[in-house]
Amino acid sequence: MLATTIHGPRDIRVEEVPDPTIKRPTDAIVKVTAGCVCGSDLWPYRGENPISAGATIGHECIGVVEEVGAEVRDFKPGDYVIVPFCHCDNTCAHCVAGVQSACDNLGMTSSGQGQYARVTQADGSLVSTGGTPDAALVPSLLALTDVMPTGWHAAVSAGVRRGGSVVVVGDGAVGLCGVLAASVMGAETIIAMSRHESRQQLATAFGATHVVAERGREGAKAVKDITGGIGADAVLECVGTDDSMGSAFAVARPGATVGFVGVPHGVELPVGRMFQKNVGLRGGMAPVRRYLPELLDLVVEGRIDPGKVFDFTLPMTEAPEAYRAMDERRAIKVILQP
Amino acid sequence: MLATTIHGPRDIRVEEVPDPTIKRPTDAIVKVTAGCVCGSDLWPYRGENPISAGATIGHECIGVVEEVGAEVRDFKPGDYVIVPFCHCDNTCAHCVAGVQSACDNLGMTSSGQGQYARVTQADGSLVSTGGTPDAALVPSLLALTDVMPTGWHAAVSAGVRRGGSVVVVGDGAVGLCGVLAASVMGAETIIAMSRHESRQQLATAFGATHVVAERGREGAKAVKDITGGIGADAVLECVGTDDSMGSAFAVARPGATVGFVGVPHGVELPVGRMFQKNVGLRGGMAPVRRYLPELLDLVVEGRIDPGKVFDFTLPMTEAPEAYRAMDERRAIKVILQP
Repeated sequence: MLATTIHGPRDIRVEEVPDPTIKRPTDAIVKVTAGCVCGSDLWPYRGENPISAGATIGHECIGVVEEVGAEVRDFKPGDYVIVPFCHCDNTCAHCVAGVQSACDNLGMTSSGQGQYARVTQADGSLVSTGGTPDAALVPSLLALTDVMPTGWHAAVSAGVRRGGSVVVVGDGAVGLCGVLAASVMGAETIIAMSRHESRQQLATAFGATHVVAERGREGAKAVKDITGGIGADAVLECVGTDDSMGSAFAVARPGATVGFVGVPHGVELPVGRMFQKNVGLRGGMAPVRRYLPELLDLVVEGRIDPGKVFDFTLPMTEAPEAYRAMDERRAIKVILQP
Repeated sequence: MLATTIHGPRDIRVEEVPDPTIKRPTDAIVKVTAGCVCGSDLWPYRGENPISAGATIGHECIGVVEEVGAEVRDFKPGDYVIVPFCHCDNTCAHCVAGVQSACDNLGMTSSGQGQYARVTQADGSLVSTGGTPDAALVPSLLALTDVMPTGWHAAVSAGVRRGGSVVVVGDGAVGLCGVLAASVMGAETIIAMSRHESRQQLATAFGATHVVAERGREGAKAVKDITGGIGADAVLECVGTDDSMGSAFAVARPGATVGFVGVPHGVELPVGRMFQKNVGLRGGMAPVRRYLPELLDLVVEGRIDPGKVFDFTLPMTEAPEAYRAMDERRAIKVILQP
């Protein structure tokens, strides 16, 4: 098949690789109808994560079941499915507790920017769309494979409540989905920290009541002004750098929780401040499968439209340009059409 | 008055110091009937915190109101009161949100091991015992000034639930009160990590269902065995060292929260592990005043007896021996009688 591969920093190629195959009886092979580039793909792209040269890349896709292993009961070839980026059996103790991202049989989509993807634990992982979706729905369904549930997880982890105040640090696709999640959950004040006009506009469309362009101390001061000098009830950290984590703690009111979903890179947590101000931290890799049924309902009912985070679509063969566009922040998030 | 002072590491004295006086109209002066030594007093005692030579020490006491400032409405001389170690107005936004330990008008008891103590924000801080308590009740009332609400805060922060499993790291008085809190909250499995026989016994009396004497990897393995290979639903970190924090994260199941109340000393939080396992951290300085009404009811109803953490009583004049006994772990916690 044709798939996107990474050979080194800023060296993205589209080339022939072996087709994925059923390796275990619980596997399924999905023919990708739409994939996309994740903000976390930019870590290896920028050389900040180790790279296995020539490996396929991409963990977000939706598509049609092509083949299933002998033990797969709930899916058959032809089923249109959403593929959570992390695969799970959905039956182990961690899954039952709602932490599918720590499943005893955890797997990951590894060729979501290719023509086919292998899904482990297919019965536990996959969610049916109930038939071929309208083309207009495709971006939002694709957003359900990672970015929307990840923003949602930030909001759940931060304990966003109806009527409360929320700050979202990070204006990437996940942060924007965090704004959308906070809005659905009924937060009254939603402050998006963003310096980019197109992202500010989308944040506002998603429900942000305020946009703060300042960073660091000035950003914290702006949030304090908006929240009556108190700070935010809940903070969503959607980047993963030490700076963004510092910003998150700086705007949290005493007793608040920072919900973090940005993969931490070089983060040192301010444990003294956390203690003194009773500000907690919760989050991590999103248990996508846990949230999928609820989020799929919201998409199908037209109550959320997370697909708006995709502002650029390219044929898969132009994956290198997709990475460049996201790296240079010319695009928020790019769909790749196989 | 006579009060306990600290002059340097391991240099505790009892000497004449100026009587505390009303400095603001919201202050009260309390005549101490019982004070005690806190595990956190051992940090400066051991030279691990800065010391202001000659300063009074001790932040836990109960007693009788001696004098009140002009704006104190709810208390008058003669009232028997519990003095939370952190004083608060109980009306600011942080107090209303239940984070009295981040009050806009935060104060601290500073001569709880002396004959008199100044209490700021008396109306917000003090809680009446409703008359002179029976002598038998005094230790438990004294425990309500810090150690019991602190253990309770660890349990609240960790999200202890009825039927769940809890690990308590630290077998000091706070950790033991954490065991008691988890028991009152209905946890089914309560694992106390303790190597000291007298503390193990008290942990069991307070409701621990298991005692694990091993530390590090062996301790984590023992907890895994008890919890069916899963780890604990909630973990109470009641020490504040990097080792104890590491132990806490090692025994937490994915999705759990570590509730921390040990003042952090040299702690580096394992942010990568927290992310990967979705293990959160919440806690800090306990909002004592928030929990006091509920805990006082439990004490008066005879449902909890946190005073059992006091296994040694000395006249205040022997404060140096009280510190030695706690430092050498000959005593769990020492009452000082002025």
